[in-house]
Amino acid sequence: MIDQSLHSRLSVSTTNGDGFGLGWYGHPGETPYRYRSVHPAWNDPNLREAARAIHSPLFLAHIRAATDTPVQETNCHPFRHGHWLFVHNGLVRNYHTVRRDLMLAVAPELFASIEGTTDSELLFFLALTYGLATEPVQALERMAALVEETGRRHGVEAPLTMTMCATDGQQMVAVRYSSETQSRSLFHSTSFHHLHELYPDDPRITAAGDDAFLVLSEPLVDLPEVWEEVPEQTAIVARAGTIMQHRFNPHLP
Amino acid sequence: MIDQSLHSRLSVSTTNGDGFGLGWYGHPGETPYRYRSVHPAWNDPNLREAARAIHSPLFLAHIRAATDTPVQETNCHPFRHGHWLFVHNGLVRNYHTVRRDLMLAVAPELFASIEGTTDSELLFFLALTYGLATEPVQALERMAALVEETGRRHGVEAPLTMTMCATDGQQMVAVRYSSETQSRSLFHSTSFHHLHELYPDDPRITAAGDDAFLVLSEPLVDLPEVWEEVPEQTAIVARAGTIMQHRFNPHLP
Amino acid sequence: MIDQSLHSRLSVSTTNGDGFGLGWYGHPGETPYRYRSVHPAWNDPNLREAARAIHSPLFLAHIRAATDTPVQETNCHPFRHGHWLFVHNGLVRNYHTVRRDLMLAVAPELFASIEGTTDSELLFFLALTYGLATEPVQALERMAALVEETGRRHGVEAPLTMTMCATDGQQMVAVRYSSETQSRSLFHSTSFHHLHELYPDDPRITAAGDDAFLVLSEPLVDLPEVWEEVPEQTAIVARAGTIMQHRFNPHLP
Amino acid sequence: MIDQSLHSRLSVSTTNGDGFGLGWYGHPGETPYRYRSVHPAWNDPNLREAARAIHSPLFLAHIRAATDTPVQETNCHPFRHGHWLFVHNGLVRNYHTVRRDLMLAVAPELFASIEGTTDSELLFFLALTYGLATEPVQALERMAALVEETGRRHGVEAPLTMTMCATDGQQMVAVRYSSETQSRSLFHSTSFHHLHELYPDDPRITAAGDDAFLVLSEPLVDLPEVWEEVPEQTAIVARAGTIMQHRFNPHLP
Repeated sequence: MIDQSLHSRLSVSTTNGDGFGLGWYGHPGETPYRYRSVHPAWNDPNLREAARAIHSPLFLAHIRAATDTPVQETNCHPFRHGHWLFVHNGLVRNYHTVRRDLMLAVAPELFASIEGTTDSELLFFLALTYGLATEPVQALERMAALVEETGRRHGVEAPLTMTMCATDGQQMVAVRYSSETQSRSLFHSTSFHHLHELYPDDPRITAAGDDAFLVLSEPLVDLPEVWEEVPEQTAIVARAGTIMQHRFNPHLP
Repeated sequence: MIDQSLHSRLSVSTTNGDGFGLGWYGHPGETPYRYRSVHPAWNDPNLREAARAIHSPLFLAHIRAATDTPVQETNCHPFRHGHWLFVHNGLVRNYHTVRRDLMLAVAPELFASIEGTTDSELLFFLALTYGLATEPVQALERMAALVEETGRRHGVEAPLTMTMCATDGQQMVAVRYSSETQSRSLFHSTSFHHLHELYPDDPRITAAGDDAFLVLSEPLVDLPEVWEEVPEQTAIVARAGTIMQHRFNPHLP
Repeated sequence: MIDQSLHSRLSVSTTNGDGFGLGWYGHPGETPYRYRSVHPAWNDPNLREAARAIHSPLFLAHIRAATDTPVQETNCHPFRHGHWLFVHNGLVRNYHTVRRDLMLAVAPELFASIEGTTDSELLFFLALTYGLATEPVQALERMAALVEETGRRHGVEAPLTMTMCATDGQQMVAVRYSSETQSRSLFHSTSFHHLHELYPDDPRITAAGDDAFLVLSEPLVDLPEVWEEVPEQTAIVARAGTIMQHRFNPHLP
Repeated sequence: MIDQSLHSRLSVSTTNGDGFGLGWYGHPGETPYRYRSVHPAWNDPNLREAARAIHSPLFLAHIRAATDTPVQETNCHPFRHGHWLFVHNGLVRNYHTVRRDLMLAVAPELFASIEGTTDSELLFFLALTYGLATEPVQALERMAALVEETGRRHGVEAPLTMTMCATDGQQMVAVRYSSETQSRSLFHSTSFHHLHELYPDDPRITAAGDDAFLVLSEPLVDLPEVWEEVPEQTAIVARAGTIMQHRFNPHLP
């Protein structure tokens, strides 16, 4: 996180210094935990403590380069609702123009749980409104369709750029999508079982268990066969050792 | 500010340590300036610098005791729109329940200018929606009526407690009102011309000019004849040396 | 912590809003963990997460009311060196006058580990210099004697007020002392084995195990027989279920 | 500042996001004013307000990329003592090793005014100790010599890299120096009287008065003849329209 916050190679912004966040799961069934800070990741002493203290089967981390909303903890990812955590890299174009319409589309009973003012959190609550908990990929497709339909109604040509990941502690859903088909990068790890045979002495590989699985916006280590790029306009769902890949096809309900 | 932030005597909370803000006017016609911070007023070194550096014919200061919204700069008063500044001491009861309805009542063209998530800022934007710039007292009465009507529709008995002050640099409008007629305190200064005769040697009095005018939630110095309490359910409008007092009577447009 | 930060009853300052800190131990032999923040404890969302996430056999918590040094994370307690954690409530009088002399008395090899600028951290490093790790009470007595000798040399009548607690994860050393014999309060819990018989249904008591032990600047619950006040000018050492009480008698080595 | 904080071209760190500061002078004889913040310059709303509000005949600005000391306001430049302001870009190598010796060399009567923990502030107080107020260049040469002598005594080969600027509101003293003769960049503006003839229509040039003078670590606009690079191992002193250039030659008093 610290390295990427200072020198992101594949991101739109090389500097991601507008806060960061960690989310992680403890015992099954518990609400996930979260640590968010407005400091740049590279100079938050508590982050180094947390990295040492936290042991978890599943965690989510995010570093922020604010697009056009304030730097404050409530705008730091991951966003959380019930057992779900959500991180996003991208933007809703002309957000200030479409924000009101999108907020109205959030289920009234979820509205009070919106804490911040970012487009990212609003995407999360729209996905929750459309059924993220039960049909995650379809809910995300409906959300994306609503954002595109709303944007176009306001004259925005390419309303949505979205590379996101959500999890409920059991499954991980990640999407690489953009209205203009020029999405930000997304990678996932290949089989660590295989990688352990390939790199038996590389501590960066052996540190992970056979069933480790990583979803990342940029490769973490420069080694062949470790990372697979998620194709454009694609959703992946990882659950219990299996990875499913779906064409991501936004459509309204 | 520092003293009151630590030991408020008339406030609901004795400690007001959840950020603070200053707003002030420079040359006529300019957008007012603002300094806001999430630090408690008593430990922000920049506040002491600002107090020394700023010279202005008109300023507004606020210390915050958060009711139920996050401590972040966008939630610190004064709120600003165009030439208007707004501070508030009070709350919209069951805010999380009524927030969505109140947000919908904000004029769509003003919606994108809402930066934070407090009830106070929302009251300001509702007042702007209802004509604060042209008929300030009536706009505030309409806003209060809407909040009360919305709250009661959601089963809230005493929806609004509001001691507020707004200014456009020319006039100062202050209201002391609450649905339950138990409003928080509000005072204004009496004639400094008269006070200068009364206390010719007290530096706290002589420091102010003959036409100085202060609106305060608590008296600043303990001297007789300096302060006049604003009665319950009352608006005052101060402009060009005159102070008008109005019965504050919320009613929908 | 949140309650005490807003309404301390026995402290010199009723408001303790100048940051806070937590220190805790994980597996035996590990460096203790720490979370420090300059926010008032009552409005730091990460503190509520940490309180939910952290499980530890031994932790230290502190809320700060700054005396005369800046509010910054490096000045928040607990201070840490190796396996030791240190918290302090009190002050070195005329600290700005004696600071240079006291800093010179810190062992040169420890000097570079001082991160902040408080009197409290300096007391800790003086105690480390005098052998805190091997003879904790004697080291603290030497440190107190040095501070008193240095202060008196600079004309300070009552140089030291110190209610402190230090731990290495195995033992807990706490001192209540002041040059003027008017020390700040200090309490420890009595036998929870006995309290469980006394209050079998009070969840605040049954939540703790039979061998729980608490050292506190103020009683946490208002129940008879739960707390024992540490007398003036006294050190206590708690280790493996035993509590030793010593007369605290500062003397130079 | 905002642009340079994100994309410094000539600095060692491209990102300078570890706080920033402004210092400026009001009426002659007044203590200079200061605004410092730990936020990255690019996301501090108060900086944009300050830039609009502050009018001053002389100001100093600094963005920080921390080398090895904490990000906190007391470590943000400019440092201030009396009428002097001081900013620094560079480092004392092996600072943690030599810090104690350097602190001891600060005049005891100045010691208590050191607020932070950086090498930069310590350089400032050493220069004050050696007579910055009366013989600025010589005081800086003595300070540099002490740092080099101390570093070499601890086995540091190239102890000092220092590009700095100090002012008392009347004169501006800037130095470009390093033990290894590879100093960080430093520029000053040429005659704006001449530049106004050269670029009569460029608003970036016409915005400045005929007697404007800028000292900068990087050129602000890409136009020929505007900037002059300060040579290696050189001090400049600007006062009342004249610029003197001196060979910077560290030597102990």
